[in-house]
Amino acid sequence: MTFQWSTPVRFSDVDHAGIVYFPRFFHLFHLAFEELWRARIGPAAYSELIDRDRIGFPAVKAECEFKAPLRFGDTAEIEVSVTRLGGKSITFRYRVHRAAAGERPRQLAAEGHVVCAVVDLERFVATPVPDRVTAMLADLIET
Amino acid sequence: MTFQWSTPVRFSDVDHAGIVYFPRFFHLFHLAFEELWRARIGPAAYSELIDRDRIGFPAVKAECEFKAPLRFGDTAEIEVSVTRLGGKSITFRYRVHRAAAGERPRQLAAEGHVVCAVVDLERFVATPVPDRVTAMLADLIET
Amino acid sequence: MTFQWSTPVRFSDVDHAGIVYFPRFFHLFHLAFEELWRARIGPAAYSELIDRDRIGFPAVKAECEFKAPLRFGDTAEIEVSVTRLGGKSITFRYRVHRAAAGERPRQLAAEGHVVCAVVDLERFVATPVPDRVTAMLADLIET
Amino acid sequence: MTFQWSTPVRFSDVDHAGIVYFPRFFHLFHLAFEELWRARIGPAAYSELIDRDRIGFPAVKAECEFKAPLRFGDTAEIEVSVTRLGGKSITFRYRVHRAAAGERPRQLAAEGHVVCAVVDLERFVATPVPDRVTAMLADLIET
Repeated sequence: MTFQWSTPVRFSDVDHAGIVYFPRFFHLFHLAFEELWRARIGPAAYSELIDRDRIGFPAVKAECEFKAPLRFGDTAEIEVSVTRLGGKSITFRYRVHRAAAGERPRQLAAEGHVVCAVVDLERFVATPVPDRVTAMLADLIET
Repeated sequence: MTFQWSTPVRFSDVDHAGIVYFPRFFHLFHLAFEELWRARIGPAAYSELIDRDRIGFPAVKAECEFKAPLRFGDTAEIEVSVTRLGGKSITFRYRVHRAAAGERPRQLAAEGHVVCAVVDLERFVATPVPDRVTAMLADLIET
Repeated sequence: MTFQWSTPVRFSDVDHAGIVYFPRFFHLFHLAFEELWRARIGPAAYSELIDRDRIGFPAVKAECEFKAPLRFGDTAEIEVSVTRLGGKSITFRYRVHRAAAGERPRQLAAEGHVVCAVVDLERFVATPVPDRVTAMLADLIET
Repeated sequence: MTFQWSTPVRFSDVDHAGIVYFPRFFHLFHLAFEELWRARIGPAAYSELIDRDRIGFPAVKAECEFKAPLRFGDTAEIEVSVTRLGGKSITFRYRVHRAAAGERPRQLAAEGHVVCAVVDLERFVATPVPDRVTAMLADLIET
């Protein structure tokens, strides 16, 4: 199973070549990650983890292959899954499909992974994945 | 009548002081403007105006008063109206309310105006407001 | 006297119309403000004010008139001055000139003002302008 | 040999966890790439390649390992080299060091690679690396 979230490409997402600026794909990944928290726990879920529990998920590695350009007017459909749920780190997989008005089928625009450490933000050291996060991600783990 | 659109404050919207970076409010204004086009004409409406008709709406003046900070975890509820629909320019009014989980009532976070010229993008000179734009905005004009 | 700082327009500063996205001008204003601190007090000056002294300068009002578009390949030359140094607020004036390779004279691209409150970040209430800030800005006050 | 360029971490580069938002590292990579063009050919060099010659360098793959967080107040020192100069693609290596006022030695914050295709922007198909680009990069190729 994957978590899915869509967003229009924004007027300011493009660069001078007229396509989505490649660092913005990693931003799209993060938006989908934020939406996963909102959808499954609640609107303030991720901010509470950080502010109250002082736990964060800094990226330790990120990579992406860009398959097709996205342009203003397109919609980005993002799928999130988990390829590894470790004791103190989590690897997310993101796939971005391009959907354009009047076109079928949609097209794979980008695919990438982000490895996040689970970190005690006070000391910036690794800490175990909280139970509610394990529960939140259980059905997204790829088999 | 106003057009309304909401978005969560994003993880990257804040600055080092922990509140939404003030230039981002103008970005929120533009996102609501983009959503107005999507909702009323269609997903590719504004990109078609620019790419096919070569008409754009560059800002000639923008201003905003910031009333209360927005933070990650808040939702920004944005209202769009039109305070002036001229022959070759349009003035939009934007109000951003802060909605926070479990808090009532919501709070006015920012209020601003953006004056847009209607411009022939080939020559970068003013051109009349297209009829379908006048129609799209008719019920948003403040009286 | 004005404080001056220049930056190339960046590949990602433009929008789908091919000109600098208007909210980015307010970002340019802020970059020049950050550089003012660096140039006059030191590289960590503004972060120390916020982190150690817990004083910040949130914008309470910002406005800008856009006179000419900036494009990728141009250089933005920014001038900072102070139009009002109050007890608990400061009004900055920013002018952005466009300089393009091989073109003379440069052109005024945008002019705006940002009113900043001086704020105790712990309680988010107004606090007096610190003496070193008054000293830093003295020669930038317009007469 | 490497090309080197430095920038202060910006007030808006950080996220709600108080560290540079990870997608911004890829933006830092691109800024250094833009500065390489400016330093070696001229201020409008990369825009001319795109606008006049209609050649661009879209990323086809990007990856980064994040070693240490960057914060507002730090300076990012970026090194660019070339690990592969192919017929129709180029692989750049970027290393970002964190330099903080009063601290020695500086620290490796991130290291990554970006594989760029060389593309005819009219048809969005691969095209040979232009000679002046090969010349510009010659001394940056790792051996």
